[in-house]
Amino acid sequence: MIGLSSYAGVMESLMNSAEEQQPSSPLANSWSKIQESSKNQKPKCVGGFVLVHAGAGYHSESKAKEYKHVCKRACQRAVDRLKAGALAVEAVAAALVELEDSPFTNAGMGSNLNLSGEIECDASIMDGKSLHYGAVGAISGIKNPVLVANRLLSEAQKGKLSAGRIPPCFLVGRGAHDWAVSHGIPPCPSEKMASSDLSAYKRNKRKMELAEKIDTGHNHTKKRRQSSENVSTRTPGELSENGSGCLDTVGAVVIDLEGNVAAAVSSGGLAMKHPGRVGQAAHYGCGCWAENACSMNSHSTAVSTSGCGEHLIRTMLARECSAAMQSEDAHQALLEAMQNKFISSPFLAGEDRVLGGVIVLRCCRCVEPPPSQNIQGILVEFLWSHTTESMCVGYMSAQDSKAKTHISRLPPGTVPGQCLAIEGGVCRLMSVVE
Amino acid sequence: MIGLSSYAGVMESLMNSAEEQQPSSPLANSWSKIQESSKNQKPKCVGGFVLVHAGAGYHSESKAKEYKHVCKRACQRAVDRLKAGALAVEAVAAALVELEDSPFTNAGMGSNLNLSGEIECDASIMDGKSLHYGAVGAISGIKNPVLVANRLLSEAQKGKLSAGRIPPCFLVGRGAHDWAVSHGIPPCPSEKMASSDLSAYKRNKRKMELAEKIDTGHNHTKKRRQSSENVSTRTPGELSENGSGCLDTVGAVVIDLEGNVAAAVSSGGLAMKHPGRVGQAAHYGCGCWAENACSMNSHSTAVSTSGCGEHLIRTMLARECSAAMQSEDAHQALLEAMQNKFISSPFLAGEDRVLGGVIVLRCCRCVEPPPSQNIQGILVEFLWSHTTESMCVGYMSAQDSKAKTHISRLPPGTVPGQCLAIEGGVCRLMSVVE
Repeated sequence: MIGLSSYAGVMESLMNSAEEQQPSSPLANSWSKIQESSKNQKPKCVGGFVLVHAGAGYHSESKAKEYKHVCKRACQRAVDRLKAGALAVEAVAAALVELEDSPFTNAGMGSNLNLSGEIECDASIMDGKSLHYGAVGAISGIKNPVLVANRLLSEAQKGKLSAGRIPPCFLVGRGAHDWAVSHGIPPCPSEKMASSDLSAYKRNKRKMELAEKIDTGHNHTKKRRQSSENVSTRTPGELSENGSGCLDTVGAVVIDLEGNVAAAVSSGGLAMKHPGRVGQAAHYGCGCWAENACSMNSHSTAVSTSGCGEHLIRTMLARECSAAMQSEDAHQALLEAMQNKFISSPFLAGEDRVLGGVIVLRCCRCVEPPPSQNIQGILVEFLWSHTTESMCVGYMSAQDSKAKTHISRLPPGTVPGQCLAIEGGVCRLMSVVE
Repeated sequence: MIGLSSYAGVMESLMNSAEEQQPSSPLANSWSKIQESSKNQKPKCVGGFVLVHAGAGYHSESKAKEYKHVCKRACQRAVDRLKAGALAVEAVAAALVELEDSPFTNAGMGSNLNLSGEIECDASIMDGKSLHYGAVGAISGIKNPVLVANRLLSEAQKGKLSAGRIPPCFLVGRGAHDWAVSHGIPPCPSEKMASSDLSAYKRNKRKMELAEKIDTGHNHTKKRRQSSENVSTRTPGELSENGSGCLDTVGAVVIDLEGNVAAAVSSGGLAMKHPGRVGQAAHYGCGCWAENACSMNSHSTAVSTSGCGEHLIRTMLARECSAAMQSEDAHQALLEAMQNKFISSPFLAGEDRVLGGVIVLRCCRCVEPPPSQNIQGILVEFLWSHTTESMCVGYMSAQDSKAKTHISRLPPGTVPGQCLAIEGGVCRLMSVVE
């Protein structure tokens, strides 16, 4: 019934698909390069690694260039912050701002419109060092929802509010907007955030009304489901044919040169969603997850998800993938997590197609002897996997001159929501121990 | 540093504390009673079991009678539904309606007021049979938020909306209110939902303003925390001295005669919270959890939490307790979960006092030979545990004439947030196999 397809599954090699347009300089070789350079001079702190996604969904070939370009810029932003000495949580927020600012992604500027023709965004961020978390749901009139989530995180870290009140970690709607503005985040008129001339919205609305007309006279639930399926032949929750409505959440995962991880996610939500609907991007454990290594966990892990919010919520996919990443083989662990905790999850037993994607980082101190005693190495394994038609990713280490980008696609002939693609690579970082 | 205190920890015996005012008829004996009755006639379906809580926090002695009374009525409501053949999810919603309708609990009617003097409620419900879930956050003007959550759950079970859209499982704010009204749930003017003359709100507001004055001139974060602690000597997040503001979430867990479990939770949130703040009661995995037994899990489990929302979110306590309940010894498993996943959780490493409580059901088919082949028995273990000063609970089996209620308190001399109380009992149900 449900097939499983894995391609480009060899962890140590990076993919060499036709999608890849970057000059060939495999990250897997960076360790030896750094080893060489360290013989002659005190090695530079390489500053970390970032992996971003511009949504799991459907990416048209015609817009592939734009999707890749925004991923590239997002990676660069994060790396700039890392090189300036920022912690992972700051760098991941910087990457998200770039992703949100693009009119091509469904987050921040250019978000999908809801049933009332308005933009309502979800975003969250998690710091693997402090394990603090901040989230906003159904927020309007703020250009960068991730900055509000990040501010909630940093405010919560300062301790209690006046009169012993606990600071919030999750704010929604008008209250979230007002809190943001009172904390110095400028409001942005909603009309400036919509990227199109509303034509897609109007087309979707017409399609929906037509579908409802078909439903009229069919009171029976079964009929509702059947007629719905006749209308949407693509991806559940997605109405638009031009591709823009077929993207969901964007996100990023980062490791800094101290070995801290962080993750973030941001989404305009499903097109034509009900006002007030909150998806996985604002849901703890569902949209993103980050945990530094500790006595219990040998690996630091960071995860960001994308896809159908309700599927990602009910399977708590970010946290499940993070937990799976403590297994020996990262690639096998993610493959099994996507298969058993997502596609075949008992929590989605009634769903015909289970749609989502994840990006994953896991890191540990290198087991190989470092070149000298005051230098430590960090082994970074990075992966992505999706059950949607495609997923656009970008990644970059601080020693790279520019980011690599890739649009991963399901193998031809496989069915979205029932099969998966999985790819990834390895990077070795090194830092000076003071 | 952090002590551990467990009292009345013997699972097979129910507590006999001075709090208990019900006639003695230990549920543990119910199995033999039913066995006797089955010799003479076809046994009646006993219809299930319910356990409710009216918050983990601080319950004043002066209002103990009211707290117990509402728990008793909530149990009765659930049992009435179970006896009428309702499934667990319907019965748990019925119990919640009764808890929400009481002006003494911080949920629905009588909810805490936020910083703007308004009521905003959170609620969620989970069905262990379908594993579906519904939640509302920061909803105003609806008397019974749990009914909106329940309606979201049942609508999602019907399948996709028109044009292939995925139905939402979580709605917030104005959108949640409008969805509820459009689905036949009547609005309720907010002024009717406030239980008091606003005197507590005004007192809290003054206290907060005073605390903020003390803070003026102390820009440093550390100062903020210190001065805050001076003001609130009781429970973080709780300002009111009269006890009413010191309660949080209410909830219930139910097993029906088919062996299905369900859980629900509802809260007015912390007093003087920021508008738009959403607590654990609307957070998947944090406020409630229910999972029927399956090939992976030998026990059905249902959990509902109460206490400081942010602590319960960040530890995902409902799901953690549910997962722990697959261990052999339920009492020991809950004790360890509360200690390791809550009080000593790495996710709350910076918190001085970790405040919350849980009610837990776990059930399995009886291992003892049933009295006849067409009758099957279900062993129900029910427990509650809290780190707050007190927690009010009630429970009832469908064969009982009335509910038992109890205000559990930490042992004298122990520190809230650092120690815990744990209690529980056992009940055996039987049902006819068709």
